[in-house]
Amino acid sequence: MRLKCICSYKGTQFEGWQNQPSGLGVQNHIESALTSIFDTPIRIHGCSRTDSGVHAKGQCFHFDADWTHTQGKLLRAIHSILDKDIRIERIQKVSGRFHARFSAVKKTYKYSICLGRAHPFEQAFVWACRDTLLDFGSMIAASKHLVGTHDFTSFGASHTRDNDPNPVKTIEAIELKKKGSKITILITGSGFLYKMVRSISGTLYAVGRNRLSPEATLKLLKSKSRTNEIVTAPASGLSLEKIFYA
Amino acid sequence: MRLKCICSYKGTQFEGWQNQPSGLGVQNHIESALTSIFDTPIRIHGCSRTDSGVHAKGQCFHFDADWTHTQGKLLRAIHSILDKDIRIERIQKVSGRFHARFSAVKKTYKYSICLGRAHPFEQAFVWACRDTLLDFGSMIAASKHLVGTHDFTSFGASHTRDNDPNPVKTIEAIELKKKGSKITILITGSGFLYKMVRSISGTLYAVGRNRLSPEATLKLLKSKSRTNEIVTAPASGLSLEKIFYA
Repeated sequence: MRLKCICSYKGTQFEGWQNQPSGLGVQNHIESALTSIFDTPIRIHGCSRTDSGVHAKGQCFHFDADWTHTQGKLLRAIHSILDKDIRIERIQKVSGRFHARFSAVKKTYKYSICLGRAHPFEQAFVWACRDTLLDFGSMIAASKHLVGTHDFTSFGASHTRDNDPNPVKTIEAIELKKKGSKITILITGSGFLYKMVRSISGTLYAVGRNRLSPEATLKLLKSKSRTNEIVTAPASGLSLEKIFYA
Repeated sequence: MRLKCICSYKGTQFEGWQNQPSGLGVQNHIESALTSIFDTPIRIHGCSRTDSGVHAKGQCFHFDADWTHTQGKLLRAIHSILDKDIRIERIQKVSGRFHARFSAVKKTYKYSICLGRAHPFEQAFVWACRDTLLDFGSMIAASKHLVGTHDFTSFGASHTRDNDPNPVKTIEAIELKKKGSKITILITGSGFLYKMVRSISGTLYAVGRNRLSPEATLKLLKSKSRTNEIVTAPASGLSLEKIFYA
């Protein structure tokens, strides 16, 4: 039986989603809980390999196992042993053709910037920058240049090509919101290069500070090469919001 | 010059508001930052001695010092050295007659209960109980018995009388709210005994589980003696929301 799970986690203390030799990957924790419940080694397959320190509200993974009780009982069993910084939101029986990673059609990430000191209740989930004002209009103008299908090499990490042979990705939408001292960037796309969301967020931040113009952002995209003008925004501000399946 | 400050903090890692020999009181941290900025020992006077692990959104304290620059500059100086789990919200020059504790006329505390597993983003700020359903109507009925001026000995910690010679306090309002799997209890009053808000919250929780009736709550109040029927709800769910001054 294949089970599809949606989970959320506070990424601060974890070394990213993927299994780590240290045991500090989110995947390590979930696999260890499931292995203990099912009394047989369980391997889970996640959709997004979120980086160290990155949070998630809607990560998805699947695994194969036989469970004859209710899904509520499985949830309670998992939560009785799982670290409190991880919560399984939903468990659902799916077809054996479903794959958390390969069946996903698009994902939404949210990047949160706080202008100045962050509220202590929120500080783990934002990037608190020193600026008290950002040029929001220019950030929106720059974001429009990035929407669409492009070669995003400039916005990938330097070893992008080793991990992902195809730097051409489609960003369906970038939505910027401003509320009080908080700016959020919602990016939806079918695929992302390693560190691409944080690089786009860092670039929009640089535009907000008027260190980079919206036109220069377009130029950077077209250059198809990573330069030090591209800042990778810190992991704390990033959250995997939602994964869409057909 | 007397300065009045409003501050917020995530209480998890602190041993309460008051100075501790360990240096882990919120007050220790703030005094140490101010002492370093003013280059002279600064003593601050807080309004509410919140307990170990309790959070605050609107704690108030005052101190005396001469500051000739802007308040924005003082805020930036403090935040450049202060632990990220504390934020100074506002600094305001006040009359020398103002006292953070003695000038306060009432306070609002918020207690947050989560039914079942808490969201990882919120778990540090709630009490995640095992129940999936509480009798909300009975909780409201029980809360009404506690509003008003009463001898709250039953709802104070056992060593109440040592700290506070007057167990008669006035609760102006108890407001219960329910949203999804979260129940919040807002308690406003002119004064509180040690652990009184957590004892009232724990009692309302017991009522919600139908372990105690609203009438039994009234009986407990009238008994003026602490019994083991009164549960002290955990610190993580409590936050000092606001302090009112005349």
